[in-house]
Amino acid sequence: MRLRNKPWAEELIAAHPEIVIANPEEHKGKWHEVFGNNNPLHIEVGTGKGQFVTGMAQANPTINYMGIELYDSVIVCALENILKVGPIPNLRLLKVNGADLYKFFQKNDVNRVFLNFSDPWPKTRHAKRRLSHENFLKLYESILIDNGEIHFKTDNRGLFEFSLMSMSQYGMLLKDVSLDLHANMPEDNIMTEYEEKFSAKGQPIYRLESQFITKEHL
Amino acid sequence: MRLRNKPWAEELIAAHPEIVIANPEEHKGKWHEVFGNNNPLHIEVGTGKGQFVTGMAQANPTINYMGIELYDSVIVCALENILKVGPIPNLRLLKVNGADLYKFFQKNDVNRVFLNFSDPWPKTRHAKRRLSHENFLKLYESILIDNGEIHFKTDNRGLFEFSLMSMSQYGMLLKDVSLDLHANMPEDNIMTEYEEKFSAKGQPIYRLESQFITKEHL
Repeated sequence: MRLRNKPWAEELIAAHPEIVIANPEEHKGKWHEVFGNNNPLHIEVGTGKGQFVTGMAQANPTINYMGIELYDSVIVCALENILKVGPIPNLRLLKVNGADLYKFFQKNDVNRVFLNFSDPWPKTRHAKRRLSHENFLKLYESILIDNGEIHFKTDNRGLFEFSLMSMSQYGMLLKDVSLDLHANMPEDNIMTEYEEKFSAKGQPIYRLESQFITKEHL
Repeated sequence: MRLRNKPWAEELIAAHPEIVIANPEEHKGKWHEVFGNNNPLHIEVGTGKGQFVTGMAQANPTINYMGIELYDSVIVCALENILKVGPIPNLRLLKVNGADLYKFFQKNDVNRVFLNFSDPWPKTRHAKRRLSHENFLKLYESILIDNGEIHFKTDNRGLFEFSLMSMSQYGMLLKDVSLDLHANMPEDNIMTEYEEKFSAKGQPIYRLESQFITKEHL
């Protein structure tokens, strides 16, 4: 995503702690207090402008959603969109680095991880930055419930191939795989900004659902 | 594959027991005697007209190959092609049903299974006929060496999606996945007849290598 300098972003973010969580480390292990209920928590790592997570939160009011994005200039777009549509009580944004999730979440805090159109980092020497790299899988497993799931979408063939192998080699189960999501569009599919753009060009959208398996499951 | 009636096929097959194995059940557990060496044995289940297995045998003289095909009218094409190019000592054909492999092979007889452009059997009620169905995986595992591999190619998206899930859910490891084989064509790729036809139309060819894992491996 191209980053534009937005000097006003920081101020707007600080003015809305009811949406962009201010001191996330304080809520580790007790996120239900933030949402005021015990509903499951689904997080999107790399939420961009937030179209997906906002749509999901509106469509599924009994699930709590959190969009995670590092950059002020990007997360502020998500914030503006949420301010436009009005309060969404089951949605929060979190401005942190995905690699630092362990600082804010502990085992069982999260029920599902969404990865949508993540940066493919095509160079081999950048493989560790891919959000489906083994190191990230380890991180997600450490904050998810047992048998927690990852739901993953991308237009990038190389990243999808890498993710299938990475998850399989980690011992995860592939539960659902689609190599052309829009050829048989699920009724409940919520599109991201990238998804709209790439599918309009006729490129296939790849999708998978994978599950961590506990040893008792084997 | 469209089947034409070829009344002469049976006779030609019977006339070449040095290529189409006559009494396969007699060789169970001692296939090395047929080839006269202890080289690894790679089998292609559903070999069609045999272009792939013939090319592989010519390219890899220290590996034994066997093309398995049920229909007289199809296997006879493979036989004719082999007769045309002259003797290939490391290649045999086997005219049996894939589901009956257990009658002719025992554990450790086979080092690798190739599945190329298998019938996709798209109807859900026919899922058990797909050569990557759990029941077939069980069969392959029972005749392969420990940690044996399946190498799988298809142009059929639905069959590939099914196979990724089926193999993952069986506990197999995905070692190599390509969602557009010809975009980065491996130098040693040997094309099947179907592969030439479908890739000429610009359709992606899907490929995977998967591995059975023994419990000690976990």
